[in-house]
Amino acid sequence: MEDDVIFIGKKPLMSYILAILTHMNSGHSRIVIKARGSMISKAVDVSQIVKRKFSKDLKVTKVEIGTEELPGREEDHKTRDVSYISIEMAG
Amino acid sequence: MEDDVIFIGKKPLMSYILAILTHMNSGHSRIVIKARGSMISKAVDVSQIVKRKFSKDLKVTKVEIGTEELPGREEDHKTRDVSYISIEMAG
Repeated sequence: MEDDVIFIGKKPLMSYILAILTHMNSGHSRIVIKARGSMISKAVDVSQIVKRKFSKDLKVTKVEIGTEELPGREEDHKTRDVSYISIEMAG
Repeated sequence: MEDDVIFIGKKPLMSYILAILTHMNSGHSRIVIKARGSMISKAVDVSQIVKRKFSKDLKVTKVEIGTEELPGREEDHKTRDVSYISIEMAG
């Protein structure tokens, strides 16, 4: 469900960590952390900090990587390929 | 085997892509792409470009993420935690 997905962007790391902990503490047992491009490293950091510092019961249950086609900049009408990661955690 | 591992660092993307293609063309059927910290995004890009543009037979067969403890800077003697990714490709 889309409800279980959090997208990693330019906010501070701790915003995403808090969002995940809030989600898990409100009765959910699963979260999927998604990120594109240069935010991929940050997504891995978020998953690791949540697991190690805050919620040791939470495990990484699936990691997927792939490529998404996004609309290009306005000038050209080409699409551009962007790498993504999807990290499922459950516990 | 360590021979099948390539570490992603600060070289241009294409160096790593060429290293992987050379490895696969010299009789190997498997490569593991590893990266730490901010290089994680680059490792995902490398895997995706290899797969999509150069070697469509090559598939991502395993993705692992985790945390490694590295020695800290010299001043303090603490260790520091760094996220890593390990992407296995085979084909």
